[in-house]
Amino acid sequence: MRQTILTGDRPTGPLHLGHYVGSLRQRVELQALHDQTVLVADLQGLTDNGHNPAKISENILNVVADYLAVGIDPAKTTLCLQSALPALSELTLYYLNLVTVSRLERNPTVKSEIAQKGFERSLPAGFLTYPVSQAADITAFSANLVPVGDDQLPMIEQTNEIVRAFNRIVGTPVLTECQAMLGKVSRLPGIDGQAKMSKSLGNGITLGAPADEVQAAVMKMYTDPNHLRVNDPGQVEGNVVFSYLDAFCADEARVSELKAHYQRGGLGDVVLKRLLNDELQTLLEPIRARRAAYLADKGELVRVLQQGTDRARVVTGDLVARVRRALGLALLV
Amino acid sequence: MRQTILTGDRPTGPLHLGHYVGSLRQRVELQALHDQTVLVADLQGLTDNGHNPAKISENILNVVADYLAVGIDPAKTTLCLQSALPALSELTLYYLNLVTVSRLERNPTVKSEIAQKGFERSLPAGFLTYPVSQAADITAFSANLVPVGDDQLPMIEQTNEIVRAFNRIVGTPVLTECQAMLGKVSRLPGIDGQAKMSKSLGNGITLGAPADEVQAAVMKMYTDPNHLRVNDPGQVEGNVVFSYLDAFCADEARVSELKAHYQRGGLGDVVLKRLLNDELQTLLEPIRARRAAYLADKGELVRVLQQGTDRARVVTGDLVARVRRALGLALLV
Repeated sequence: MRQTILTGDRPTGPLHLGHYVGSLRQRVELQALHDQTVLVADLQGLTDNGHNPAKISENILNVVADYLAVGIDPAKTTLCLQSALPALSELTLYYLNLVTVSRLERNPTVKSEIAQKGFERSLPAGFLTYPVSQAADITAFSANLVPVGDDQLPMIEQTNEIVRAFNRIVGTPVLTECQAMLGKVSRLPGIDGQAKMSKSLGNGITLGAPADEVQAAVMKMYTDPNHLRVNDPGQVEGNVVFSYLDAFCADEARVSELKAHYQRGGLGDVVLKRLLNDELQTLLEPIRARRAAYLADKGELVRVLQQGTDRARVVTGDLVARVRRALGLALLV
Repeated sequence: MRQTILTGDRPTGPLHLGHYVGSLRQRVELQALHDQTVLVADLQGLTDNGHNPAKISENILNVVADYLAVGIDPAKTTLCLQSALPALSELTLYYLNLVTVSRLERNPTVKSEIAQKGFERSLPAGFLTYPVSQAADITAFSANLVPVGDDQLPMIEQTNEIVRAFNRIVGTPVLTECQAMLGKVSRLPGIDGQAKMSKSLGNGITLGAPADEVQAAVMKMYTDPNHLRVNDPGQVEGNVVFSYLDAFCADEARVSELKAHYQRGGLGDVVLKRLLNDELQTLLEPIRARRAAYLADKGELVRVLQQGTDRARVVTGDLVARVRRALGLALLV
């Protein structure tokens, strides 16, 4: 059965291999099977960059170029810009009245992000309330499937709480509940072995990285610090090179063999890293070329985003009109 | 010099004499001199009525009828509906990123309202953040003058903080700072002597109240509980009848005389109340008749509101377009 999928990214920087493994690759598969919308979430990007809006605005087209470069097809996927969809803001304001401040403060995802970002007393109201804005995004498209990492499950729960509260209040099922779609590999570690690849940590490989940068990153990847000589037995767990081989090497049998060899000793890090580098170069070369071509014609990127956004305006405009009617607020045209 | 004024009401019930004295009367004067917009603030009404939207939706046209009945002229004043102006929601979302949660929690007006409404742990996020939504309303119209009661001054301060933060961040004065316009009589007491006339306290006189209801309300007004016999000296302070005479009797010299007479003794409550009743009946009779006529033709009320809202959409749409441009978010049309 065809599902309606909503997903997206905050345009805070060019996308990297973590995005590729965690979501982009999956989206290219999903667009053939389902109605997929991918949202460039600039409003959400502003929730913790309110004092530096250029960081968001300057990355919108980068992200669109990344999407097209990996094979997201605007004829199959609706690519749209959050800030250009006024229905999303309006829905957010309605939903804010159905969620308590203490409920938002208990959201585990937001709690850990607040700690991570060191917000404390300077927590922007928009950041505390962004799960409500996400609920607006999901419900505006009547999405029933939302691809997420397991750290994002509380967002799905919050959305469904809002959906149930709203439908109960207006006495009719205007909004659609959604389900999380958990990916196989939900998170690629940084090249330094940290759990998360992120631009701010400087431990990522972006999709547009030049070949020599990719190679340098692979060569300094964290492996097993106790694997000093080639003949020593090495550890696979926590070894970033193997995490990447798991994620990028299609030949699973071969990766299994390499793991066994590494564990019993006799397989050197450099050999492995060359293998991984070959895999990544093969993957990234055409992506890098397409990305550069798209970025050389920004007018075309804007046209693609405009077309998708126009389509999304119709869908989200219809939904918010139904919400307004259900609330008795449809006096005017 | 012509000023730009923004004001409005939450449509939580029909308007009453407290509104007339505190704002409506003033608006009728101001519309001749300034560019005045009056917002039917249904979104704001929902911030503490999220679970009972009918209370808001059912009162929108009542409030519009009240406006027209007291003499607010849609040819001079822009009468518009908040939920039908998507620019206001969008601005709210941008501004939420510039205000911290702790700043909102410190807002004296919101703090006392939270206590009054007994929200405690069930405080809706929309209620905590409504000062940000008000800032969106005010700035969307580039209003520089906002008529408020003194209890609303923190709202003006919050708005100007947002204005200054936004203009500083984008490096150009897109938003306009506003000033509070404090009325002469900012608050009419309830007929029971409580500081505030309100529908929920049942101590008000609505603009559409039938003549006998007005009379009954006047006759049971709180006066001086120690003024037992006509010849006793009576107290003017805290005496609701005198507060109303001050507010509604144009002949100030006469009210002064009555006060002196009452204070030295010899003037009975009933005589005074008859006087006040005459004043109020003279005021309310034509208002009541016009109000009933408007409510008998709801299509006309909707047309008036639609026309004003269409005008407001242009103004607020222009402002939010400038905000988007300043944020670098004007890629799409």
